[in-house]
Amino acid sequence: MRTVRIGLLGLGVVGSAVAKAILDERGMSQRSGVRLELVKAAVRDLSKQRSVDLPDGILTTNPADVVGNPDIDIVVELMGGENPAFDLISRALSSGKHVVSANKEVLAKRGGELLETASGSGAKLMYEASVGGGIPILNPISDDLLANRIDSIRAIINGTTNYILTRMSGESAAYDAVLGDAQRLGYAEADPTADVDGFDALYKIAILGQLAFGTSVPIDGIHREGIGRIDARDFRYADELGYTIKLIAAAQRTDVGLLLRVHPSLVPLDVPMASVNGAMNMVEIEGDLVGPLWLQGAGAGPSPTASAVLGDVLNIARELGSPAAENSSQSPLPLAPMSGHTCQYYIRLTAADQPGVLAQIAKMLGDANISIRSVIQMDTDETSGRADLVIMTHSALEANMQEAADRLRGLEVVVELDNLIRVESYGQSQ
Amino acid sequence: MRTVRIGLLGLGVVGSAVAKAILDERGMSQRSGVRLELVKAAVRDLSKQRSVDLPDGILTTNPADVVGNPDIDIVVELMGGENPAFDLISRALSSGKHVVSANKEVLAKRGGELLETASGSGAKLMYEASVGGGIPILNPISDDLLANRIDSIRAIINGTTNYILTRMSGESAAYDAVLGDAQRLGYAEADPTADVDGFDALYKIAILGQLAFGTSVPIDGIHREGIGRIDARDFRYADELGYTIKLIAAAQRTDVGLLLRVHPSLVPLDVPMASVNGAMNMVEIEGDLVGPLWLQGAGAGPSPTASAVLGDVLNIARELGSPAAENSSQSPLPLAPMSGHTCQYYIRLTAADQPGVLAQIAKMLGDANISIRSVIQMDTDETSGRADLVIMTHSALEANMQEAADRLRGLEVVVELDNLIRVESYGQSQ
Repeated sequence: MRTVRIGLLGLGVVGSAVAKAILDERGMSQRSGVRLELVKAAVRDLSKQRSVDLPDGILTTNPADVVGNPDIDIVVELMGGENPAFDLISRALSSGKHVVSANKEVLAKRGGELLETASGSGAKLMYEASVGGGIPILNPISDDLLANRIDSIRAIINGTTNYILTRMSGESAAYDAVLGDAQRLGYAEADPTADVDGFDALYKIAILGQLAFGTSVPIDGIHREGIGRIDARDFRYADELGYTIKLIAAAQRTDVGLLLRVHPSLVPLDVPMASVNGAMNMVEIEGDLVGPLWLQGAGAGPSPTASAVLGDVLNIARELGSPAAENSSQSPLPLAPMSGHTCQYYIRLTAADQPGVLAQIAKMLGDANISIRSVIQMDTDETSGRADLVIMTHSALEANMQEAADRLRGLEVVVELDNLIRVESYGQSQ
Repeated sequence: MRTVRIGLLGLGVVGSAVAKAILDERGMSQRSGVRLELVKAAVRDLSKQRSVDLPDGILTTNPADVVGNPDIDIVVELMGGENPAFDLISRALSSGKHVVSANKEVLAKRGGELLETASGSGAKLMYEASVGGGIPILNPISDDLLANRIDSIRAIINGTTNYILTRMSGESAAYDAVLGDAQRLGYAEADPTADVDGFDALYKIAILGQLAFGTSVPIDGIHREGIGRIDARDFRYADELGYTIKLIAAAQRTDVGLLLRVHPSLVPLDVPMASVNGAMNMVEIEGDLVGPLWLQGAGAGPSPTASAVLGDVLNIARELGSPAAENSSQSPLPLAPMSGHTCQYYIRLTAADQPGVLAQIAKMLGDANISIRSVIQMDTDETSGRADLVIMTHSALEANMQEAADRLRGLEVVVELDNLIRVESYGQSQ
């Protein structure tokens, strides 16, 4: 298996997550057919405490040890900001190193120049992580949706403002109070300007616009408004009218060209964007063939960003290998039997409407190790003396439930076990 | 620009949409750097009326004219079913032709063999369109999410059953009645078994499971239940408990292996899947780095499926070209000014609470060509004699709205124009 050597620029929370994922391996080489090796990581302060234990000799304070290192195949740039990132990425690309970046600012402002440098030297520049954290957006647009003329992209792509707006909406809380909370909780920076005034969303929609519409987007050509004027009252009034308020970043094809805009918008309560809450992101893409698509997930955070960074890294690394090396296979998982599945169950049955019925049913379930969460007597048919009973169980084993169902069917007071439907679990609902 | 030659197997509604998209071009060659040429299309009946006008000489009733044709680079298989698709795809792959398929049945049942044949001859086999119509799912899993250990995939991936369940949920309608409607409207087949009994969802989750977990999935190892037992009452009762009912297809890593299951499930009303209505599809993917992702869009239909088919075709075609040929650029769109944007507006202003105020405001808006959709007097402050007015406009031009806003600010009865928020339009809301 081929080894591909990685150098990091920046080792903050995202860089540490990337380094940890490389060191932990977690089956990545089996899935991709290439092994990643972390060779160097350039940092500003060698003595800083980090959440990852690196082998000796990895850390350096000199970025040239990464971008000028002949032992490095792919440079991962996670410093953020326009400078010195621009120069470092340029140097790496010029010397034929591939670069993966999560830096929205440098890509929005100078992505065109960097792509030209890459094209000149034959190096690859990928930056899926710069927009929407771990959500695959840029690569699906440039690969999977290539047959489409993209007509519109609208997105909730700033987690900080969406967190603030979600809390204002839910609690009728004032903007300043929620912003203060967001800062205390680490959702917003001490200087929140980049987020609340819409610069972060602007960088991201510039990147999306350039990619999806093949148009160079000077960032001062984008209309930008922040969320500072939104008041708790606006949420109340909007709700009465059937809307919520979101910070929308949009790039849309119009009769006169590409319109790019970042501003708060009223969004109808019944469209997918209205339900995107907290730090979640959603990108809505409309293509002439595919119609509308919605891609939703964690738009930030160390692990989701590392997912996107390493996705790009592995895809470049895979191409560096010989085709034969690509045919690695994962160690297969055995198939698990349905009888071992655990979930809550909804049981609907028609029972005799008489005293003691519930006790019999409860006992039978208890004997099969099924614990009851609630029982509700629903519709009653007085002529026939029958009633609908709906039982919700706690989490139970499929094998136990099927056995209990068979026994229930045998009970005299149970006229029919009408339905047994599993409940999908979502972490909280066990 | 390199030309890549395409042969179609099958020219039903999806095949016709693919052929039309190739013939119409729509900027595809500019976006991808390759030109597609439709060489042959194998059909059963030459005389059948089709929704696409093909040049002479394209149609043939002999599939060998496609799979054995030295002038064809990529075979697109849209016949459906296991046979004769399996043999034709095998022959094409064996002779080194690349194959793009939308055929979930043959891929679920014999995908492993086909991938081996492809691997043996160095040909590519891609099948994004076989799961989730136009939604990019398979390629993001195998490319963008490669760094993740996938832990769980849950999906609404059968449009017919989701249409039926959505209508039953909304109208308390009976299963048989809704199924009849769905058949009349073309959402369900005359023989609905493949959909309502869960076979279609089973094929798709088998494909997803094999891809995401690297495990060969015999389709009889998948637990399968259809929606035939679901009753209108179940929706009513589930709703009282805070759930709706969806047909879920799932592939999940458990302690004892990979659990695959297709069955109706209660889904909490507040999770993204609960809002996926009608023929829409959603795939929820959970990876160890990225956390949960939700991908939503049209899960079927000729154009969305053609989007996925042609995405695969163009990506293979791009790789066939020399690297230099890839550097084609789209003709750039000019940037459009914000002043030309049209949308509805939400205007919140503090006004004097006195007669005649509304008339003045309405006149001013009318003079600027802004038509009012509704005006609501919200909170009133009796001590100050002021009231909050919320105005929703009809769709208006940004330039006109900004001019009107300036004039409103100049009105003596307007104490303050507190907020002016755009409303995102969703087709219906103009």
